[in-house]
Amino acid sequence: MRTLYHTILSPFCRKIRLILKEKKLDFDLEIKKTWERRPQFLTLNPSGEVPVLVEINGTVIAHHQAICEYLEEAYPESTLLGDSLANRAEVRRLVGWFDELLYQEVSGPLIFEKVEKRLLGLGGPDSTVLRRAYHLIHRHLDYIGVLADHRNWLGGHSFSLADIAAAAHFSSLDYLGDVPWDKHEKAKDWYARVKSRPIFRTLLEDYMPGISPATTYKNLDF
Amino acid sequence: MRTLYHTILSPFCRKIRLILKEKKLDFDLEIKKTWERRPQFLTLNPSGEVPVLVEINGTVIAHHQAICEYLEEAYPESTLLGDSLANRAEVRRLVGWFDELLYQEVSGPLIFEKVEKRLLGLGGPDSTVLRRAYHLIHRHLDYIGVLADHRNWLGGHSFSLADIAAAAHFSSLDYLGDVPWDKHEKAKDWYARVKSRPIFRTLLEDYMPGISPATTYKNLDF
Repeated sequence: MRTLYHTILSPFCRKIRLILKEKKLDFDLEIKKTWERRPQFLTLNPSGEVPVLVEINGTVIAHHQAICEYLEEAYPESTLLGDSLANRAEVRRLVGWFDELLYQEVSGPLIFEKVEKRLLGLGGPDSTVLRRAYHLIHRHLDYIGVLADHRNWLGGHSFSLADIAAAAHFSSLDYLGDVPWDKHEKAKDWYARVKSRPIFRTLLEDYMPGISPATTYKNLDF
Repeated sequence: MRTLYHTILSPFCRKIRLILKEKKLDFDLEIKKTWERRPQFLTLNPSGEVPVLVEINGTVIAHHQAICEYLEEAYPESTLLGDSLANRAEVRRLVGWFDELLYQEVSGPLIFEKVEKRLLGLGGPDSTVLRRAYHLIHRHLDYIGVLADHRNWLGGHSFSLADIAAAAHFSSLDYLGDVPWDKHEKAKDWYARVKSRPIFRTLLEDYMPGISPATTYKNLDF
């Protein structure tokens, strides 16, 4: 069986889980405590990071972007990038926006302060870092609102990797109760549409020991 | 004519310049002062970042990864990713290593402290940040040494995007005189091979006003 090594609240791992579901590829999930840096796992991925996908034939694909592009090339039947060069460039631009800008400004700091510090015994969250992330999240929700206002889905006419990447980050933040949906009606409508897709179901069942999901995390009507 | 908007010492822009050269695609370079956040440029790339490539037919491709994948798809004659799925996954894993880990730990902090702070009038470099980056650079040079010891090029048998991504970061650091080549013989041999390729020539002519290149930056025998 195909195996995905992951951590529950990593947006990059969630992105891969959603792609695998969308492409109807079966897989086992294995949680990896990356901070233990076990030698056996370092042979799979020298950086020690997740996600890492091990294919049925034993091929190891490490790094979230490498896995995304691999899955598109290996299972091209239902593309998540779009058909034209211009559409694919636009989808990848948006994936870059969410995986770099949104992660750097919002999801990275919030997950580090509220989740990773607890796991690593590094004390409580730094309120200055939290405040900055809570301030910056609005521009990303505004941008999703602008995109959703002009397009069927974030990357264009079809549901794409742009929606998956954005939803992966916002679902981790939503687990922590950190998304001010009520101030961003259009972004909320978009997320409600993504959240109600069958591929999203297993993510909504996620439970991280010691960190309970926000009360509305599971609700499709949030 | 094709136009690449860039900044001189951005490793991500250098990566695209090297790909364009390797694929023998003509282009004009236009320096963009990204911090000015000019509205006209924001219409090309809402994040305001470089690199941005404008194709001959007017197609705009923003974000370094989107540009890399676009150039591979639009000009597949000389692939920089490799032919097999496994080889492409390995090359992309390494690109991820250099563009994320190396950038986060070394090239990002050093370029910010020594170049961007000066441009933005934010004062001198923070010596604590510099020390940390100078410490961490060794593990990346060691890793290049390990790869170069077992393979013809970093990503496998052929010169690939893995070499280009790594060389883009190290060439920016080399401009600043920040690479301890003498302590990393194998990495130095690899860089000497990349540096002597014709595609590298224009990078070695780069000159950033106010920040002169290190004395050995241009030398093929460094």
